[in-house]
Amino acid sequence: PVGIQTGVVLFWFKMKVSRILWLLCKKSGVRTQTVCTGVSTNQQHKQLSSTSAVYRYSTTSSISHCTALIYRKHGDPAQVVQSESMNLPNVGAKCVLVKILAAPINPSDINMIQGTYAILPDLPAVGGNEGVAQVLEVGSQVKALKPGDWVIPRDAGLGTWRTAAVLAEEDVISLPNDIPLLSAATLGVNPCTALRMLTDFEDLKPGDTVIQNAANSAVGQAVIQIAAAKGIQTINVVRDRPDFTTLIDRLKAMGASHVIKEETLRRPELKELFKSCPRPKLALNGVGGKSATELLRHVQVGGSIVTYGGMAKQPITVPVSALIFKNIKVQGFWVTQWKRNHSQDEGALRSMLDELCSLICQGKLTAPACSEVGLQDFGTALDKAMQPFTSAKQVLVM
Amino acid sequence: PVGIQTGVVLFWFKMKVSRILWLLCKKSGVRTQTVCTGVSTNQQHKQLSSTSAVYRYSTTSSISHCTALIYRKHGDPAQVVQSESMNLPNVGAKCVLVKILAAPINPSDINMIQGTYAILPDLPAVGGNEGVAQVLEVGSQVKALKPGDWVIPRDAGLGTWRTAAVLAEEDVISLPNDIPLLSAATLGVNPCTALRMLTDFEDLKPGDTVIQNAANSAVGQAVIQIAAAKGIQTINVVRDRPDFTTLIDRLKAMGASHVIKEETLRRPELKELFKSCPRPKLALNGVGGKSATELLRHVQVGGSIVTYGGMAKQPITVPVSALIFKNIKVQGFWVTQWKRNHSQDEGALRSMLDELCSLICQGKLTAPACSEVGLQDFGTALDKAMQPFTSAKQVLVM
Repeated sequence: PVGIQTGVVLFWFKMKVSRILWLLCKKSGVRTQTVCTGVSTNQQHKQLSSTSAVYRYSTTSSISHCTALIYRKHGDPAQVVQSESMNLPNVGAKCVLVKILAAPINPSDINMIQGTYAILPDLPAVGGNEGVAQVLEVGSQVKALKPGDWVIPRDAGLGTWRTAAVLAEEDVISLPNDIPLLSAATLGVNPCTALRMLTDFEDLKPGDTVIQNAANSAVGQAVIQIAAAKGIQTINVVRDRPDFTTLIDRLKAMGASHVIKEETLRRPELKELFKSCPRPKLALNGVGGKSATELLRHVQVGGSIVTYGGMAKQPITVPVSALIFKNIKVQGFWVTQWKRNHSQDEGALRSMLDELCSLICQGKLTAPACSEVGLQDFGTALDKAMQPFTSAKQVLVM
Repeated sequence: PVGIQTGVVLFWFKMKVSRILWLLCKKSGVRTQTVCTGVSTNQQHKQLSSTSAVYRYSTTSSISHCTALIYRKHGDPAQVVQSESMNLPNVGAKCVLVKILAAPINPSDINMIQGTYAILPDLPAVGGNEGVAQVLEVGSQVKALKPGDWVIPRDAGLGTWRTAAVLAEEDVISLPNDIPLLSAATLGVNPCTALRMLTDFEDLKPGDTVIQNAANSAVGQAVIQIAAAKGIQTINVVRDRPDFTTLIDRLKAMGASHVIKEETLRRPELKELFKSCPRPKLALNGVGGKSATELLRHVQVGGSIVTYGGMAKQPITVPVSALIFKNIKVQGFWVTQWKRNHSQDEGALRSMLDELCSLICQGKLTAPACSEVGLQDFGTALDKAMQPFTSAKQVLVM
């Protein structure tokens, strides 16, 4: 969910991202499942959404290769990303063969390709860090997964922009396969970020207020919906735009309590708003720069501002008095780090995903607006993903 | 310990500071103790440092008035503070009559007079928020104090720049009266700030590192000494000055592990330093502006920067990446708020003071360099307290 400026990002851990699983996973006999081909994407998803469907498409031949979007050096995604055929290894005992169903293009994917993100894979690398896949075949020692299961990555760096992959069982986690495909494909990063930020920093109770900028981003939309489901009011700050009224209506339909323009943050009318709702205990910042400082001004004494993105490519300016006399806590959140910190705590990730899937099943949490694009049209999708005021998330469907 | 810019400070709680205790405290019979007069300050402290000494100086007449440094409007301290004679009320049942022994001039006292501090007394007000007093007489229902005890204020706003006062028992707390007078007079704000910051934000263990700017300030010196007593290394940042080598020697004699100039923070030699000591878990910021941002750059992943002052009168600039990817927590500390939050928890303040007094008794914590000034010379003392690069804290002795 992060757009961070080149030059500022420091590379703390140069993660060994491209888990070249075909080197790690041992061969495990003859593979009996193959991916179905020649089926249109939508049809395929329907057919693959139950285990029986997988078996229906099984043959005795194995998948020996996949198509993947690979970059061999960092740079402009339009220049460095290319579609290539890659051999797949045999499915080791603790591995699964999956067909990737859908994988979004997130800002952090772009930054990773540009070489400006906090973690970078060894090159060459397959693009994409998020997405949903269906298990086609499991190794002999795989315990928790079976063909037909839907899985998402446990960590960043899996390289999801490809048609199929052989993955270690421990690198993925299952999801119910009766939720919408696009919800599943976009669940692992942004809704997780939203839920954690609403949970881990302030003890929010029904009636409390959260203020956020970038309210129309994928994280922002998830924050609106999750907060609404918990009875928490949201003040949603968005940049002014031609279709502002439409945007207000759309965000309010999701559950936004208030939708305001950035400039309103500096106006007296905000005081009026605080006559009807308490000042926010929590501010969520995906922008940085002046926008963050403005949010901070409205947080109540003892509250927090949590930064998860920096789209403005500007640092946050914090008045000394806000720290000392208002006791505002300024912190950051990075879902990748959260997942790593909890990698040994199976229950933590599972219960978070269960909570989110439950909201999805109840119709309280929907995927952000998405444009589904075939893998072959990745060039256009990357271009669109990098444009400002993007109204829909680009999702590659395989 | 705070110098905050005019205009930035917001006045969250306009505290009713000047507890006009002569209005609150009820008369409680004939007072039998009086302050000794006509004794030079140093002599007097020696003589007053045991209960018997007090009785030795007791007479049957009561103190009916005191001399106080009063301001009737906010502004330049040199212009608005004047010495006046004030009547003292009778000593109510739950009150104590005290002689103020010594009271420092802190930056926050100056800001309070200027009207730029976060809490402001009703006017007219007696200046000063800190100091040590000796109990001369106690009301009939006073339980924990007796004549001869040394006391310091529990909260800001007591108005300590005066020769004597009648105070509610609950507004003061006793100290051992065998510690040096200047240690007692300067204990309640800066060493408390230092101890809490070293305790409440990161779990520091022997061998861990703390970095701080304003290392030569009263808080800074207390941080050096308390950290050294706990086996914690300190990297102490000071502004360059003509007598820099002398300053290094002085701070190292106190226990500073490293003393560096601000510009060194940006130089490669700091990397060398981090070969021999771990990167700081905690940064303490009394300056703000660029100095704070530089400190922040060196804090280890997951660490904290705690701001207690803003001498540079500039906000702190926090890179978004430091929050998200380094998980740095940016917080503030205000000892006045801490004391208020713990006002119902007698043990918290008591155990903090005990810990500090124990360090003082062991010779591990000394008062900052002080200039003792008679109350009548307050004009000069205020002028000196407001000069930059002040090398000694001005302490009024009565």
